[in-house]
Amino acid sequence: MAFKDATLAEIDTLVRESNFAFQSYRNLSGTKRATFLRAMALEIEALGQELVKTAMEETALPEARIVAERGRTTGHLKMFADYIEEGSWVEARIDTAKPDRAPAPKPDIRKLLVPLGPVVVFGAANFPLAYSTAGGDTASALAAGCTVLVKAHPAHPKTSQLVADAITLAMQKTGMPKGVFHHVHGASFEVGRALVKHPLTKAVGFTGSLAGGKALFDLANQRPEPIPVFAEMSSINPVILLPESLTKNYEDTANTLTVSMWMGVGQFCTNPGLIIAVENDGLTAFINVLANKIASQHPETMLHDGIADNYNKRLRQTLDQKGVKIEAQATGVSGKREVKAIVASVDAGTFLKNPLLAEEVFGPFSLIVRCADRHELHTVVSNLHGQLTCTLIGEEHELRDYQGLIKTMTDKAGRIVINGVPTGVEVCPAMMHGGPFPATTDSRFTAVGTDAIKRFARPVAFQNCPDSLLPDELKEKNPLNIWRLCDGNWKK
Amino acid sequence: MAFKDATLAEIDTLVRESNFAFQSYRNLSGTKRATFLRAMALEIEALGQELVKTAMEETALPEARIVAERGRTTGHLKMFADYIEEGSWVEARIDTAKPDRAPAPKPDIRKLLVPLGPVVVFGAANFPLAYSTAGGDTASALAAGCTVLVKAHPAHPKTSQLVADAITLAMQKTGMPKGVFHHVHGASFEVGRALVKHPLTKAVGFTGSLAGGKALFDLANQRPEPIPVFAEMSSINPVILLPESLTKNYEDTANTLTVSMWMGVGQFCTNPGLIIAVENDGLTAFINVLANKIASQHPETMLHDGIADNYNKRLRQTLDQKGVKIEAQATGVSGKREVKAIVASVDAGTFLKNPLLAEEVFGPFSLIVRCADRHELHTVVSNLHGQLTCTLIGEEHELRDYQGLIKTMTDKAGRIVINGVPTGVEVCPAMMHGGPFPATTDSRFTAVGTDAIKRFARPVAFQNCPDSLLPDELKEKNPLNIWRLCDGNWKK
Repeated sequence: MAFKDATLAEIDTLVRESNFAFQSYRNLSGTKRATFLRAMALEIEALGQELVKTAMEETALPEARIVAERGRTTGHLKMFADYIEEGSWVEARIDTAKPDRAPAPKPDIRKLLVPLGPVVVFGAANFPLAYSTAGGDTASALAAGCTVLVKAHPAHPKTSQLVADAITLAMQKTGMPKGVFHHVHGASFEVGRALVKHPLTKAVGFTGSLAGGKALFDLANQRPEPIPVFAEMSSINPVILLPESLTKNYEDTANTLTVSMWMGVGQFCTNPGLIIAVENDGLTAFINVLANKIASQHPETMLHDGIADNYNKRLRQTLDQKGVKIEAQATGVSGKREVKAIVASVDAGTFLKNPLLAEEVFGPFSLIVRCADRHELHTVVSNLHGQLTCTLIGEEHELRDYQGLIKTMTDKAGRIVINGVPTGVEVCPAMMHGGPFPATTDSRFTAVGTDAIKRFARPVAFQNCPDSLLPDELKEKNPLNIWRLCDGNWKK
Repeated sequence: MAFKDATLAEIDTLVRESNFAFQSYRNLSGTKRATFLRAMALEIEALGQELVKTAMEETALPEARIVAERGRTTGHLKMFADYIEEGSWVEARIDTAKPDRAPAPKPDIRKLLVPLGPVVVFGAANFPLAYSTAGGDTASALAAGCTVLVKAHPAHPKTSQLVADAITLAMQKTGMPKGVFHHVHGASFEVGRALVKHPLTKAVGFTGSLAGGKALFDLANQRPEPIPVFAEMSSINPVILLPESLTKNYEDTANTLTVSMWMGVGQFCTNPGLIIAVENDGLTAFINVLANKIASQHPETMLHDGIADNYNKRLRQTLDQKGVKIEAQATGVSGKREVKAIVASVDAGTFLKNPLLAEEVFGPFSLIVRCADRHELHTVVSNLHGQLTCTLIGEEHELRDYQGLIKTMTDKAGRIVINGVPTGVEVCPAMMHGGPFPATTDSRFTAVGTDAIKRFARPVAFQNCPDSLLPDELKEKNPLNIWRLCDGNWKK
């Protein structure tokens, strides 16, 4: 089965249809949209083993991972269905009129979030289900009331097509307007460019490389009407090991981190690519355990040739830098898409002088930065780029002693993990999966959890609007029974 | 008194100081920051008549307006002081751990908003107090815990300096770290450019022209690390007059709209620059009243030469367009900064064909678009750019009949006004002062009201963090007694 790139004329037609569908889709109640999201989940589950096998073939990911990811995908859909059915996500704010106020009467003003319009979502290579066709971006945009156009990732077009067909079926079964969801293929950058540059496109969701995300961000900002791009791009997810904890728990820490590093062949955006510690006996022991652990691992297959080529290229480039020493590597020779895990180390002075060493090597690679002392460790963290996560591993009294470091970590990352690993992103209201550039293009929004819906909405206020003409969310009697901020107080 | 442009070296020093001050300022409690904001209000009030006279001299605005604007400015400061003292603005979300969950335990995750860092604020020509040195952008950024660097608007440098000195005094009296607030002068674009391009600057607030705001937006996005720009730029604030209401109330409507159009010599961002109506006897009568009203007005002085020159240039350009007819104008010949109010009209067909007619003419000018019928009226609204406001004036049953039009207005604007005028922006939690491009560069945020604080903050999540190390807002016992979303429920 081969898929043709969408032509520019096709793209124009699809975006127009998407915008037309938006005019009715955004008026559907949360309950109706929820029915559609739940139907999507059902139809995806109904694809059964065909979906699992296809995704395995296309991505080389193991069955357990694909099955888990499918669960995460349908979980997202059901979570957003519940969330919009409940309805409080629109952040309703009501300030009632004071007709007698002097010198001027206070008008009645009521505000809620409304959907942006057609959203273009780029399928992600590393999440063929959970961040692709019916993934988190699609689910949150559809939940917000936006229509969606997905560009399939060319590394898993069959998987994407299967899911797209399931969504189309769900649309039909729940009577959604034609054009609520569209799916196009496009191996060439031109397809993505045309989707982003189309004047009716109102926002973009992307998960992938810094180069790819930044290119879309630039395109979107150079449009006559700039639009927001939510690109989740590049993060080396620093893990800071405090000295006493390291000396005490070096074995456990090495074991846990190895699992996190090698998980999904290092192809998670939260992969721990940087380990920062003060030079001591604990660090030496930690590296020994790590080296043994990794030496026993065999090469594994990455998602596609491009990712493997890029990993090998960036790896060579990094290992060629002055002062970088290999500390641990997996055995065996790697094939075309096969790669091996590698851990290298460098002293903090060299690391600070060479910005290339702070750039992501996407895959199972981690760099240990050896610091002379606590001061140097803080300097290394202060000089990092923006990150999705920053992890601190220490004894409780050490953590207290390093509170200033936690503040610096907060400046650098969207999520601070204490005594854990960065991989494993919980889907919940408190999750923040995002962070300062270059981790994402917009540090004010999360790509995971219920707040991801906020990326695709904007506030609109109604002034002195008759009750019967207000959206239900803002009507005086609160017919949807949602949480609203009324004259400064939360009420239901 | 002459003010020198800040040099590039001075700007570098100031932004560095601002970033250094941020490291301690962001750790202050809401209560401490509130003390500072209230002290700012007190010191501004203490400037007394000197401030009023200086602002009047520099802007040609009348005393009553300046006094009212001072009240609005100190009102903002006190409102944000109350808001951050109360503390719920950080949007705390808490998802507690489920250690027994299968297959993997659920970690404890808690999220809140944290300040972005140093913010550059550009003083606005048309609000020498309320959107300049200690205006809404400065107040909301300082409230969020950001430090602020203000570039004085070159049209009112003395006013700006007086307010800056008052802020400095408030800083000293409340023991704020040096560098929390800085103030620079700069008639040249280079000063603004250097402030926006400085690597330690994290966000920008601007109110002014489309050309100015878009230039800053482009600069900020072309930085190695792009940063958000909140530019409030260009809006013609369409007012739609429905036929029955117009026939019935043409006199009242004309009187009210004339006041709104001429208020502050048309120099409000919510000035009604476009009036859209179906051709009928009501419209003819409405224009007659308007013409009489405006003919009795005398030329008034605009804020500065540049604004007056631009008004006259854009006015000539617009009036020179094919099909544009002058319907009403003020009497007298205008001097250099003096301008007169003008209302012109054009038929909808011509308007739709000539995009120039939909662009802002900043000043006391309005264009009436005569539509053949209801369908053409809807087409005109559908083809508008993004707006700050969109107003609909109609009888209640007419409004019900035009619900589809309200949906289209919602797509185009941040605030929908029913049977009112767009000028007069209430400062309250439900206010949305913003809108789709080119009204602003980010339709997802408001520049007025308590939610304006959100422009200068981003979420950070803490995973498995010991209670004693969490920010107070996230501690288990809720010591600040703020509203928090705990496992999906709002609690205090």
